Formats: sequence, structure tokens, C-alpha cells
Amino acid sequence: MSNFIRNAWYVACYAEDIGEALFARRLLDEPVLLYRKEDGTPVAMLDRCPHRFAYLSKGRRIGDEVECIYHGLRFGADGGCTRSPYHESPPANIAVATFPVVERWGMIWIWMGDAALADPDLVPDHSHLEAEDMHTAHIHYTFQGNWQLGNDNLLDLTHLFWLHANSIGGYKDEAGPAPGEVYTAKQVGDEVHSTTLTPNVTKPSAVPNRLPEGEPYDQWNDTIWRAPADIRFFIHASPVGQREGSIPYMTQSHIMTPETATSTHYYSPVARSWDKDPAKDEGWTSFFKAIFDAEDGPMMADVEEQMAGRDLMEMRPVVLPRDRAAILARRTVARILAAERGETEIAEAAE
Amino acid sequence: MSNFIRNAWYVACYAEDIGEALFARRLLDEPVLLYRKEDGTPVAMLDRCPHRFAYLSKGRRIGDEVECIYHGLRFGADGGCTRSPYHESPPANIAVATFPVVERWGMIWIWMGDAALADPDLVPDHSHLEAEDMHTAHIHYTFQGNWQLGNDNLLDLTHLFWLHANSIGGYKDEAGPAPGEVYTAKQVGDEVHSTTLTPNVTKPSAVPNRLPEGEPYDQWNDTIWRAPADIRFFIHASPVGQREGSIPYMTQSHIMTPETATSTHYYSPVARSWDKDPAKDEGWTSFFKAIFDAEDGPMMADVEEQMAGRDLMEMRPVVLPRDRAAILARRTVARILAAERGETEIAEAAE
Amino acid sequence: MSNFIRNAWYVACYAEDIGEALFARRLLDEPVLLYRKEDGTPVAMLDRCPHRFAYLSKGRRIGDEVECIYHGLRFGADGGCTRSPYHESPPANIAVATFPVVERWGMIWIWMGDAALADPDLVPDHSHLEAEDMHTAHIHYTFQGNWQLGNDNLLDLTHLFWLHANSIGGYKDEAGPAPGEVYTAKQVGDEVHSTTLTPNVTKPSAVPNRLPEGEPYDQWNDTIWRAPADIRFFIHASPVGQREGSIPYMTQSHIMTPETATSTHYYSPVARSWDKDPAKDEGWTSFFKAIFDAEDGPMMADVEEQMAGRDLMEMRPVVLPRDRAAILARRTVARILAAERGETEIAEAAE
Repeated sequence: MSNFIRNAWYVACYAEDIGEALFARRLLDEPVLLYRKEDGTPVAMLDRCPHRFAYLSKGRRIGDEVECIYHGLRFGADGGCTRSPYHESPPANIAVATFPVVERWGMIWIWMGDAALADPDLVPDHSHLEAEDMHTAHIHYTFQGNWQLGNDNLLDLTHLFWLHANSIGGYKDEAGPAPGEVYTAKQVGDEVHSTTLTPNVTKPSAVPNRLPEGEPYDQWNDTIWRAPADIRFFIHASPVGQREGSIPYMTQSHIMTPETATSTHYYSPVARSWDKDPAKDEGWTSFFKAIFDAEDGPMMADVEEQMAGRDLMEMRPVVLPRDRAAILARRTVARILAAERGETEIAEAAE
Repeated sequence: MSNFIRNAWYVACYAEDIGEALFARRLLDEPVLLYRKEDGTPVAMLDRCPHRFAYLSKGRRIGDEVECIYHGLRFGADGGCTRSPYHESPPANIAVATFPVVERWGMIWIWMGDAALADPDLVPDHSHLEAEDMHTAHIHYTFQGNWQLGNDNLLDLTHLFWLHANSIGGYKDEAGPAPGEVYTAKQVGDEVHSTTLTPNVTKPSAVPNRLPEGEPYDQWNDTIWRAPADIRFFIHASPVGQREGSIPYMTQSHIMTPETATSTHYYSPVARSWDKDPAKDEGWTSFFKAIFDAEDGPMMADVEEQMAGRDLMEMRPVVLPRDRAAILARRTVARILAAERGETEIAEAAE
Repeated sequence: MSNFIRNAWYVACYAEDIGEALFARRLLDEPVLLYRKEDGTPVAMLDRCPHRFAYLSKGRRIGDEVECIYHGLRFGADGGCTRSPYHESPPANIAVATFPVVERWGMIWIWMGDAALADPDLVPDHSHLEAEDMHTAHIHYTFQGNWQLGNDNLLDLTHLFWLHANSIGGYKDEAGPAPGEVYTAKQVGDEVHSTTLTPNVTKPSAVPNRLPEGEPYDQWNDTIWRAPADIRFFIHASPVGQREGSIPYMTQSHIMTPETATSTHYYSPVARSWDKDPAKDEGWTSFFKAIFDAEDGPMMADVEEQMAGRDLMEMRPVVLPRDRAAILARRTVARILAAERGETEIAEAAE
């Protein structure tokens, strides 16, 4: 079930996760070592000495190099062996695999497919996190389920009204979707764009926003998905009927990187246009993390348990109108996976 | 190794286990949701929403219906969708699988095979639990082994003298079978009937009975097995030579329902003809449960570990005379499994 | 991955591990029961009753016999059934498999292959443990990795300088190999002989020895490996240039017995020529055990995790000059395994 798209930029970690120390993280079911060179440049390599397969992350850092703790081979940031205690000069044929990395939007992006295709210009746009008048907090979740369950969860926001009924779902005084909610979803090239709009909201929202309580407003979320699992939320609220030219009061990135076939790293930077004191970041991240860990995370672990190694689409789920974006995303993923495998047909299971 | 007989009534739980609350139990390696309708009728359905596979048991009950916690689909007791927040009226093609259930003898019986064959008249007779002048206590064990190990264990009572030597085995003053014990076992249609008789017992029994201590008596146990794993014990003691017309002083049902291929729910209602104050039930169940959990349960887990995924008969166990009932039962099970698979020959391994 | 050499003497346990009590240990992924007869002779048999597969080690000892706790079958030290409660005389066809055992060099050796080939003269020579003027302490390690990782670890002693840099590696004042170290390794029949020599050592050693501190000396370790995983260290130190006729000041045996394909029992008796008070043994064993459990054991578990079920050689490790002995050993193992499988070609993966 390790259906990983290989040729894509994935988030390996947040920019602040790495520095001088050796940092280990399993990504796409491979052990990866990350650190920064003395000049700050991020480095990623396979966390496995090519000699006897020790984790390099358990070794020690010497300048920009890493020394294996088992028998002392030393490797540079480019993966080449820089010192062997057993040779006069380091043999040219000893090297550890490295991965292209790019630091952008506060995150370290890694390419674990064909390195020749690793074009930094392909790093997905998350410039909204650095937009003027916004402040961003970094949230890192993990869940015990396949990465595509993250796409499914985030592309069908109706789960807010049920799974999150007692936290951030819907409105403070009752659960369930508001009357008049409008949902659209469409394929735009390799992206899936969807919007959920609730016009003329008069109830107090459980989601923090900047509108004065009591005033009716229009509330909407423009969602843009891109493969493998890169989602942006642009969340708006405006006085009723004045949606034109609105600037989102909050934006969120939701980016999933497979840890294994059945567990996932989920990076979710959230940008807010108010309450921007960085000292408040901890409150923001713990607010969202508590909800995720109590509600979304267990749900995705449950679904993974129900799948028991099967593919979700092979289990023929009932498809609802609000699954449109999620299904378009699954079809796009199936198309890309088939292309990576050299297949011309789209996997039938996803049709 | 999931050799489950599908077309049979299994015990899902005791009658008192279910009510208003949603009750989840894995049976035949499927998640099952059980509850009672407001009129008390028991309901069983697959514990999996057909939309995105959440456990329905984690949702909420609304009248006789169940609402999924993930996206709010609602299902009636017949499995049909009664409300979709995403449709004007619930689509007829959305449904969750249900299972026929019957409440009888203080237990909820479930049929997880072809529903067309689920004849309530086929629920095994356990009327002895409701016999006049008897009082029944409900014991629920679990063990980490294949369900057929439960048949093996119960159909060869010589294990009482060894495994239970220090608890209920044999006689208070020494371990081992009494001299003169007589054992018979025979196939009767699809049932296996066996009897263990010890005539002229003069030693005090470790098993509670109503006879005055010191008086010699005849002691015997008539055992009736029926597939898949439905066993009744009729335990008698009479003055020596006066066995004719005896009424059992204690009866026990022993009914195994597979949880998975390697773990089992084991229901054992025990009916007694004395000490009938219901306040004593807790003492009776804890007495038997302590013995099972210390002696039988670990033994079956050990045997499962020794099997390591193999079939017991393929491991060619030595067969002793006292295995006769257990071997007849295993052959009957093999015959039924082969028939369910459409095979006409009996599995050789069981011959 | 259960590439076990069957026709070989393995260490089952230390001589002092067994006595009157029933002793259970998994060896070559089989459960084994060990004990001593009343006359002290060691006995080994499959720890599985042939009737219903209970662990015999959970039964009880009666004289030289073992009685199964499940249904009371009794077996003699030769595996034959000596009593069945269900037969007038014990049936000749009921027996439990036994294994040849030999007690030698303070250890119990077991042969789990073709018993006809179990020649006691083939028990590997570890007479150095009983050499005059030496005292031996018994160390028992376990690690969560394939047994061949133990060979790899012990046949490349350069890991001392890195993995053990802060414990027993190298010299007290700096890590890394000493200049002038000389390494040789060669195949001698089915054995692999290697030597690591450091001439003219002037730094204080982290390894205890008997030479006066401050005096320069020559230090060397003669290592003899024999399949499957039987290694002897003869550790010498002599005044510079006076190596001829040296007697080792310390010797070590390192003998691995697979527990499962991915876990190993590792017996390491250590003989010392000084500090010979037996009351000091506990200090010696705890000194080495603390180092192994913190440094070698976790490393081998890491490598096993990196292998993830693959064969190490199939992963094409980089081979360094100091791997010569380990590679010769792996080739010998591959040759023996192929011969046991009836193959004439050497497994290519190991070439």
C-alpha cells in the first residue's frame, strides 16, 4: 500500500526544526537525516551509512560533515565520503544518497524522487503565509493513517458540523450546517478548487474572526488542493453581499507528508490577521492541536483500521455530493501514480 | 486461518449487555454495532459507515437511529439511510449492512452468513438455563486463541485433573482422575454426545454440589456439542446406583464466538439448583473467571503461540482415547466449512 | 529470513543455568526445554507436548521425567512417553523430540540438526576458558537483530574506536585508532583467523591489562571465528618487540545462538589472568553488560530495523578493508547454508 508519489516536493520539517543538531525523520518510509550547514543551508540525506547501515543521525557532526558512530566513516553535505580511517584518501565510490532540499515559506521542502526533476520553481506557492499584515504560527500534527485520508478529511468540510460539533464546528448555539450553504468544486489543471460559502450568517461563529458579533455576515472558505497533499484554505468573512475584493482574515496551509504507508506527518501553518502578538502563537497551536488530537487524528486511525490494508476506493465507499473535491483529488493522485509507474491508464479503482 | 463457519447463530453478547447505548464488539473479524430499539428489540449492524468508514458506534443515537459522527449520515435499525444532510431526501442506495438477531436464553444471537438462511428456529436450545428450580449466572471470558481450541479444551475434561489440579480439578485430597471413570463419546447427527461418569465417589469433590459430604455418590457430566462451538454440560450427582431419572444439580453452557482468527469471546452461563440468591451471582462468576483467567486462558494462548499460524490438525497432534469427542467435533467443523466453501470432500487435515 | 545452520553445536545456556527446575529457552526459533537429570546429566527436548502442544516447561518434574500440565502425559529424558493416564501402559508411538546435548567449557551445547551427525568431538574448542592461571566469568547478552550481525560486529574491531569511544574504545585520552595498527585476516579451512596489532603503545589503555602504566608495550588480539557464530579472542600485551611466546592476559569467547530470525542469545565467557577473586565476577559481567546494552545492542537493533527483513548482503553494503574477516565469515556461512539446502553453488548474494 505504499502508493507514494515520488516526484514531488514534500515538507520535511519546519525551518526552525533544524540547525546544528542532527535531526532524523522518516519520510516516504525512508529514514532521512536533516541539518543545516554552518552557513545555514539545509541538507538532507538518507539516514543510513552505506557501510553497515547505522543511522547517521546517531553519529556526530564535525563542521558541515557527519561522522558515523559505528566505524567512523565521514560524509560531507553532498553525501560524498570525506574521510575513511581505513584509507589514505576517502574512496570516491563511497557515498550516501542525498535529497534536494529548498527552504521556503518557513518550511524545508524535500524531493525524494528523480533528482533531475527537482526544480525549485515547482515548490508549491504558500506565499499567503508571508502576506503583509498576517502573522503565522506553525502546527505539526501526526496521525496513524494513510496520507490520502488527510486529503479526504480536509476537502470535505462538512465534518466540522459533526466530528467537531463540540469544538470548532458550525455555530456556538447548535450543531449542523447553516441553511443556504453553497458548495462548489472543480478541477483546474492538476489542482482542485472548491469553495464553501455561507451567506448571511447571523449566529456567533465558533471559528475566531474579526467581525463584530451580532452583525450578519457572509462567511466562505476558498480551498486549493494540489498533489500529493498540499492544501490552502483562504477564509473570508465580509458584511453581507460585500464579498467582492475581500481579503482573507485567516489562511491555513495543510500539507501531508507520508511517514509510512499508514502514518503521516501533517504540517499546518496558520496565518491570522489579528491577535498577531507572537507570544500568542503557543495558544493558537495548542488550540488547534488539542482538537486535532482528540477528533481528527483518532478518526483517521479508525478509518485506517477499518481499511486493514485495503485501498479505500476498492472498498467502494458511498460518494456524497460534498465528496466532489476529495474524489477529484483521489483521481488526480491515481493519474500521477499511474504515470510514475509508466502506466497510461488511470487506476480503475479510483474512477 | 479465518476458518469461520458463516451460516450459524453465534452469541453476540448477553441480553443485559445492550440497551440504549451503542455497543461495539468484533465478531468473526468484523466490527459489529449492537443496541436495542426503544421498544427493546435488539439490533445488529456492521459498525462501519458506508460513506467514509467511521465506526458508527462512535456516533450518537437518535430515537431508534444512529448518526455517524464523521459527516452526519443517519441510519435506521434496518440499515437504511434515514437522513443525509446533503440530500433533500435520503438516497435509497445508501445503507449499512445489518445482521439478523434473536434474543433467547438470556443471550443475543447473531447470524453473520446468508441472511436468507437465518431461521430463528435454528437458535440452539439452551432451555436448561431457564429450567424450573435453577438460577443462572452469566460469565463472559475471552482468550487469545482460535475458537476451536475452546472446543478442544471443553470436550476433553481430563484437563481438570492437571491444569485445574489446584482449583476445581478432581478431589480435594489428591490430583488425578478417580479410578473407575467411564468415558463415552459418539456422533449423533451433527452433534457430538459424550459422558464422563465416576461411580461410587467417596472423596470430597472440589466441584460444589448438593450431596452431603461423606456419603458415596455417582458423579457424571453429559456433554452435548453442536457446531460451531456450542456446548452444554449437564452435571449430575446421585446416590450410588440411583442414576436413573436424575436431574442435573448444575448445568453450564459454553459458547464460543470468534473475535478474530486468534481470539475468542466465550460465553458461559451457569445454572445452579442451590445457593440461588442472585446476590451470590457475583461470587459464582468471579470464582469461575479467576480459574479460567489463570489456567485455561493462558493455556489456549500458549497453544495458539505454538501453532504460530498453522492449523492444529496439520501439526499432527497425538490423539488420545479421551480426544474422541474433540476429534468428532473437529471433523464436523471441517465438513461444514468444506460445504460452505462448496467443496464435497472433507478437508483431509481433519481426518 | 530464518537462515539457520542446523548441523552445528550451539550454546543453549550456561552450565549453571539448569538444574532441577524446568528451564525454557527459544533457540533457532523453536521452544526448547532444558533441565538436569538427578545424576546431573543435561537434557534438552522440544518444549511442546505432542498431544495438544502445551509447553512442557510449564508442567512439573517427577524424578527424571516431565509431566504435561494440560492432560498429564509424562515423558522421560529420552523423550519417550513413560505414563499416559489413558492407557494401561504408555503407547510406544507417543514421544517428544529430544536434542543431543553436551556439557563442556561451562556451557550446555545443543545440536538441533540431524542427530546422527551430532558428534561431541565437534563441540568447538573453548579450552582457553579453563586454562591454568585464568579465571572465567559468564556473561549472557541478548540483542534484537539477526545472529550474523554479531559476527559482523565482533570481526571488525574498529567499532571500538567509535561506538565505544567513551567506554572501552581506544585510549583514555583520545578516541580513534592508534597509528601503526596492523590488521590481517585469512581463511583457514572453515575458520577465519584475524589479528589486530598495535605496536609500541605508550598511551594508557581503556582496556584493563597487567602491564605497568607508562611503559610502552605491544598490544594485539588474535581472533578465531568458526561457523555459525563461534569466536575466540586471545588478547595479548607484551613489552615492545617481545611478542614471541606471549600468553594472553585475557581471553574471551563470543558465541551467538539465534533465538529467532531477528533476535539472538549471545554468550560471552571472559577469562582473566589477574583480579581472579570470584567475588569480582559480578563486577566484570556488569562492566561489559552495561557497555553492550548501551552501545552494541542498540546498534544491532538499529541495523536490523534498517534491513527491514532484507538480507544484509542483498543491500550491497560498502565493503572496507577491515571488513575482510566479516566478509570471509559471511561467505563461509553462505556456503554451509547452501550445502545444507543441497545446493552446490554458493549463494550469490554473499559473493
